[in-house]
Amino acid sequence: MKTVYNDRHGQHAARHEFFRGQLVPAFEIPARAYYVLQALQAAELGPILPPEDHGLAPLARVHSAAYLDFLSGAWAEWQGLGGEGDAFPAVWPVRTLRADVLPRSFAARLGLYSMDSGTPLTAGAWPAAYWGAQCSLTALDLVLAGERSAYVLTRPPGHHAGADFFGGYCFVNNAAVAAQAALDRGLKRVAILDVDYHHGNGTQACFYERADVFFASIHGDPLTEYPFFLGHADETGAGAGLGFNANFPLPAGASNEAWFACLDAALARLQAYAPELLIVSLGVDTYGGDPISHFQLDRPEFSLLGQRIRRFGAPTLWLQEGGYATEAIGHNVLAVLRGFESST
Amino acid sequence: MKTVYNDRHGQHAARHEFFRGQLVPAFEIPARAYYVLQALQAAELGPILPPEDHGLAPLARVHSAAYLDFLSGAWAEWQGLGGEGDAFPAVWPVRTLRADVLPRSFAARLGLYSMDSGTPLTAGAWPAAYWGAQCSLTALDLVLAGERSAYVLTRPPGHHAGADFFGGYCFVNNAAVAAQAALDRGLKRVAILDVDYHHGNGTQACFYERADVFFASIHGDPLTEYPFFLGHADETGAGAGLGFNANFPLPAGASNEAWFACLDAALARLQAYAPELLIVSLGVDTYGGDPISHFQLDRPEFSLLGQRIRRFGAPTLWLQEGGYATEAIGHNVLAVLRGFESST
Ligand SMILES: [Zn+2]
Ligand SMILES: [Zn+2]
Repeated sequence: MKTVYNDRHGQHAARHEFFRGQLVPAFEIPARAYYVLQALQAAELGPILPPEDHGLAPLARVHSAAYLDFLSGAWAEWQGLGGEGDAFPAVWPVRTLRADVLPRSFAARLGLYSMDSGTPLTAGAWPAAYWGAQCSLTALDLVLAGERSAYVLTRPPGHHAGADFFGGYCFVNNAAVAAQAALDRGLKRVAILDVDYHHGNGTQACFYERADVFFASIHGDPLTEYPFFLGHADETGAGAGLGFNANFPLPAGASNEAWFACLDAALARLQAYAPELLIVSLGVDTYGGDPISHFQLDRPEFSLLGQRIRRFGAPTLWLQEGGYATEAIGHNVLAVLRGFESST
Repeated sequence: MKTVYNDRHGQHAARHEFFRGQLVPAFEIPARAYYVLQALQAAELGPILPPEDHGLAPLARVHSAAYLDFLSGAWAEWQGLGGEGDAFPAVWPVRTLRADVLPRSFAARLGLYSMDSGTPLTAGAWPAAYWGAQCSLTALDLVLAGERSAYVLTRPPGHHAGADFFGGYCFVNNAAVAAQAALDRGLKRVAILDVDYHHGNGTQACFYERADVFFASIHGDPLTEYPFFLGHADETGAGAGLGFNANFPLPAGASNEAWFACLDAALARLQAYAPELLIVSLGVDTYGGDPISHFQLDRPEFSLLGQRIRRFGAPTLWLQEGGYATEAIGHNVLAVLRGFESST
C-alpha cells in the first residue's frame, strides 16, 4: 500500500492545550506521525510519497472562503498583534449570538471560527492542515487511478473541523475534502466510515443534507465523550440526505464485541449504499491504552478491522485521524493496514 | 436613595480568568463592591438594605429551568468530580452542533450553558448570582412601592447572561429578571437602558421579540469589543418586538461628546415609548481609567449621566453591572447616583 506523507505537519507543534479548562501538555504532537512513519518504514508496507499541490480550490469546496481566509492568515495576524505563544479562542457565538457579522477583533474571529478552547492555533497549523489536505487529495488520485487503497499519514486530524470552524485538534476536514473531490472527479456515491473514538461531527455536518456521501461513524457516546454536541443515533440525515447518515454511539468502556457489532452494522449500511469509494477516517484512539479515550481495541482487533474493510470490497482511502498513545500509534495503524493488505 | 446590598457576593471570588485565551488575574472581584459600599456609606447616600428572598420563580421567568438547575448544582457537581479550582468551560455547541440534547458530561454541560471561557464558575457563583437577583427584586419592590429610585449594589453583573447561558462574568440577568418581575406585577411598559461599556447581549436577547420591554444600549462597537457577536445598530427587534430594541455602538476611544449624543438619542427613543419604569444597567467601565474598556467618562460625566436620567422622569431602578478600575468604581457610581439625587 502506498502512503502519502507530509513532513510539514511538524511545524504544527503545540506545547500546551486546554483540556476541560485546564492547561495541560498537548496530546496532538508531531511524534504521533513520526512513530507511524517509523512503523511503516520498518515493516516496508510500501512506498512513502510526498503530496502534490492541488491548490486551495478543493478545500474551498468544503470550507467557507471566509474561514480559509482567516485560517491561512491567522498566525501572521496574531504575531502582528504581539501575540505570545499559541492562540486560543475564548468567546463563541452560541444561541442568540450572531455569526453573520465578521468582527474586526482577532480574538472574536478566533472564536467565531472555532468550537472549543482545546485546539491551539500554532505557527504551523495552517501549513500542516493545508498539506494534510494535499496528501489526502494525492492519495485520492492514486485510488482513482486504480490503486486498491492508499494511506494518508498526516496530522493534525480533520474530522471535527466544520465548514467554518476548527476544533478537536482539527482545522481542515481531510475526509470531507477528499469525498467532495471524488465527487467532483465524477464519482456518484462516496462512503465515509469514521472509526475514530470521537464522533466526526465536522464530516457529518458537511454532508448531512446530501445523498452523494454516506457518513457512518462508530464512537464514544457524545453524552459523555467529546465532541458532546453531535453524534447521536437519531441523526439520520435531513432533506435529500435523509437516510444517508448513521451514527453508532457506544458507551465509554464498551467491549470489543460491541464495537465489532457496530462495525458490522455500519458496513451493512454502507454495503447497501454501494459506494464507488470508501474513505476511512482512521483514528486509533479506540486503543485500550489511549490516554483520552475509553474503548479497548488492541493490535488483533486493529488487524481484524483492516480485514473487514478489505472484505468490504471498495477502493479504500485511509486517512489518519486521532490516536494519542503516542508510542503505540505506529503499531496500531500498521496492524490495521497489514490486516487490510494480508486479506483477500 | 436606598441601596440594596448582598454580602454573599464575596463568596464569588475567582483568582484567575481567561482573558483572550491567557490566564490572568480576575478583573471581576469582590473589592469592586466593597469600594462602592465604602463610597456610598461615606457619602451617606441613604439606607443600605439587605435583600428579601423572592425565591427562584422570578429567575425562572427569564432563565430556562435546565440552566438554573445546572447553575445551582454546578459547584457541588464539579467538586464531586474532584475538580480543582474554579471550573472553566472548554467546548461550545456552535453552528451545526446540537444544544437540544443534555450531555451527561459536566464539562459538556458547562460549555452548553456558557458563551466564553472567561467566566470562572466559582464556589460562590450561584449564591452570589442568586442573591444579586434577590437584591434586584427587593429594589424593584421599593420602586413599585413609590420610591423615586433605588440602587442595587451587587456582583457578579448580569447583562451578558442569556436565558440559558453564562458569560462575560454574568450568571443571572438581573435587569431581565427585574423587568419581567415588573411586568408580572402589572406594569405594561418597561424600559432598560444599558450604559455599560459592553453590549448587554443577554438582556437584549431576552426581550428581542417582545414589545413590553424596550432595550436600549450604548456600548463599544462589537466589531472590536466584547461580546463581539451582538450589539449592532441593525438589531431593532423582531416579530412583536420590532422597533423595541435600539443599539448605539461607538468606536473604542469615542469622545464624551459622542457618548452623550448617543445617550440623548437613546433617551429620546425611550421617552417616546413612555415606560412606567426605567431600569438602568449601570456599568461604569465607561470610565477613562478602566483596564479593559476604551471610553473616557470621568466623574463630571458620570454626574451628568445621573442628571439626565433624573430628567427622564420615570421611576428608576439602578443595577450595578461592570466597572473594573476597582479603586475608582465607588466614586464613579456615587457620582452617577448623586447626580441623579441632586437634580430635580
Ligand atoms: Zn479522536
Ligand atoms: Zn462591561
